[in-house]
Amino acid sequence: MASQAEKPKVYKGLEGIYVTETRLSYIDGLHSKLYYVGYPIEALAKNSTYEEVAFLLYFLRLPRKDELDLFKALMAEARELPEDVLNVVKKMASLKAHPMDIVRTAVSYLAAYDPEVGVNTPESNLRKSLRILSKAPSIIAAMYRFSRNLDYIPPRKDLSHVENFLYMLHGKRPTEFETKVMDVIFILHAEHGMNASAFASLVTISTLSDIYSAVVSGIATLKGPLHGGAAEAAYHQFKEIGSPDKVEEWVQKALASKRRVMGMGHRVYKSYDPRAKFMRELDGEIAKIYGGEPKLLYEIAIKLEEVALKEFAEKGRMDIQPNIDYYTPIAYTALGIPPEYFTTIFTASRIVGWTAKAMEYLKDPRLIRPLDLYVGELDKEYVPIDKRG
Amino acid sequence: MASQAEKPKVYKGLEGIYVTETRLSYIDGLHSKLYYVGYPIEALAKNSTYEEVAFLLYFLRLPRKDELDLFKALMAEARELPEDVLNVVKKMASLKAHPMDIVRTAVSYLAAYDPEVGVNTPESNLRKSLRILSKAPSIIAAMYRFSRNLDYIPPRKDLSHVENFLYMLHGKRPTEFETKVMDVIFILHAEHGMNASAFASLVTISTLSDIYSAVVSGIATLKGPLHGGAAEAAYHQFKEIGSPDKVEEWVQKALASKRRVMGMGHRVYKSYDPRAKFMRELDGEIAKIYGGEPKLLYEIAIKLEEVALKEFAEKGRMDIQPNIDYYTPIAYTALGIPPEYFTTIFTASRIVGWTAKAMEYLKDPRLIRPLDLYVGELDKEYVPIDKRG
Repeated sequence: MASQAEKPKVYKGLEGIYVTETRLSYIDGLHSKLYYVGYPIEALAKNSTYEEVAFLLYFLRLPRKDELDLFKALMAEARELPEDVLNVVKKMASLKAHPMDIVRTAVSYLAAYDPEVGVNTPESNLRKSLRILSKAPSIIAAMYRFSRNLDYIPPRKDLSHVENFLYMLHGKRPTEFETKVMDVIFILHAEHGMNASAFASLVTISTLSDIYSAVVSGIATLKGPLHGGAAEAAYHQFKEIGSPDKVEEWVQKALASKRRVMGMGHRVYKSYDPRAKFMRELDGEIAKIYGGEPKLLYEIAIKLEEVALKEFAEKGRMDIQPNIDYYTPIAYTALGIPPEYFTTIFTASRIVGWTAKAMEYLKDPRLIRPLDLYVGELDKEYVPIDKRG
Repeated sequence: MASQAEKPKVYKGLEGIYVTETRLSYIDGLHSKLYYVGYPIEALAKNSTYEEVAFLLYFLRLPRKDELDLFKALMAEARELPEDVLNVVKKMASLKAHPMDIVRTAVSYLAAYDPEVGVNTPESNLRKSLRILSKAPSIIAAMYRFSRNLDYIPPRKDLSHVENFLYMLHGKRPTEFETKVMDVIFILHAEHGMNASAFASLVTISTLSDIYSAVVSGIATLKGPLHGGAAEAAYHQFKEIGSPDKVEEWVQKALASKRRVMGMGHRVYKSYDPRAKFMRELDGEIAKIYGGEPKLLYEIAIKLEEVALKEFAEKGRMDIQPNIDYYTPIAYTALGIPPEYFTTIFTASRIVGWTAKAMEYLKDPRLIRPLDLYVGELDKEYVPIDKRG
């Protein structure tokens, strides 16, 4: 054990520590910028579909039309779930299991059905990734339906990734606008640097474990309220506030009790999260089109942002600004998705980021094995059990 | 993106980086020492049972007799598996799933049956940890039996943790010596600093996810051949060599083709792994008592150690020495455990380390969120799909 004088530095939280190089995404946290493979997130969210972004993250370039058609077809082919996996989803839903526990278990179980289980080539890893990516929405839709005592709706191959997901959830084909909203949500969540879930996933693959294991670690980690759970918390916060005219009072109380504003602040963004900005604009359209609860949530969110940012700025905390989780609840609500499913949709989208990172790391892998600093006593004497006081 | 001149350091593999403080274990890699909570591993392996070591890691002190009795009773109570979890184990075994995939899925599924799911107090986290710890051997025994078309043997409450495990595997109560060997294996694998699986588990709990998720990340990570898979690889290496008189020739060929000796070398130990030393002595006894395959494996291992260490020393690589995975295959073979199960037993033991670390970290948690360094181009122009070349 090191003596006090030479006590090594402990990088708790690993803030500011670079753990690998990447070509997948770049966050400029000071200037509100996010890029996937060098493309500004706004251009992708505006012009692309989720499949196109998934192709981009896997192949580091945008696809030609024929390539995208093939890629979409491969994904559409892989949407079915084995009967036994569906039964576990059903059973867990009947036990009222946490939705993330269900997704984690179902993906873990799917490994047993993968035709390439045990094969760990770059090509098979890509195919495994695509299978998990394609099946994730089916798992979510299945548990949504089962937990409402509704029948499972099998996937359709003629629909896009997010269209099929909304179809499997609600049993009807979504409108063009609903499809666009879901594509935007999926695109904005696809990849985001070395966040905790991506990192857990990377630690897993660094032992040369497998793609399913890497995704399962990601899901296990994204479940945490400090990570994937923030959108759900933001939703409940808006519901608690109840109406825009209650915002001012709520903020004063929150500040007095040092309560955090959920969906604001981020380890990397010290300015406005560009994804939140994009979502906020889309939410404005949604509020106009849908009215009702989405409109109410939108008005509360806008007012809360205004009041909270003014207060934070007065305290010199210009770095606390809305992140993406602040503005997704409005869109989710418009799409008929209940709050306990928000993190599962984040998961379904982020699988592409985890798997793309795992495959990138496998090109030049190194076991991730840090240290912990022992701060206890040493060389204690072992006293036999009958002599312990 | 940082310019070339100011390119930040990338700590790939996080070698030498301290990520947290701990009171659980201390590895002195230069002096062949390992301590759990300040007790030398040799004293614990010699005098303790696995339950006593688990108590030590959870409560940071050795138990009194009455405390240990209660702790053992709580563990014995929790051994049963829900029928549906057993069915998934059976199904996965019939699909010839990887044993670690089965353990990962079963533990993930168990979350749905935990009476305290959703509760995240320190007390409930300890109870959850004990439940997972107690059930893990039942999962392994179940898949062992199912994959051989044998009936599942329900756990007995009147046996110790490892006695019951061997009973559930083989259907008969183990001898005192077999029990001692398994206790030693479980004790030596219980905890080992911030290795990759413990770290993945810590990243998971750092988002305030839950104990089941933390354990699932640990299992997913331990699966990798660079981590938990090394004992199995060492076994196959001994089998490939076939007899002690083939060792010399095998080593020359291995060196010529730059092939690694499996079970030798370690990120932290630069001297003889003290666990390997303890196992080697026990293996000597085992070889005498059992003869047959354990004796043959033992003789090959001893000879290979002698020849390889001489060669490594001549190359100035005194740091490559046997680690624990080198000497466990002999004991496992004596206990009738096939190589594809070695990592699952490591898992069953290590759950105590993962969960003790998770609970320790939760006393003062901090989200683990490092960075990755973007090395690609930025501000690429988005070209519409029909104009891509």
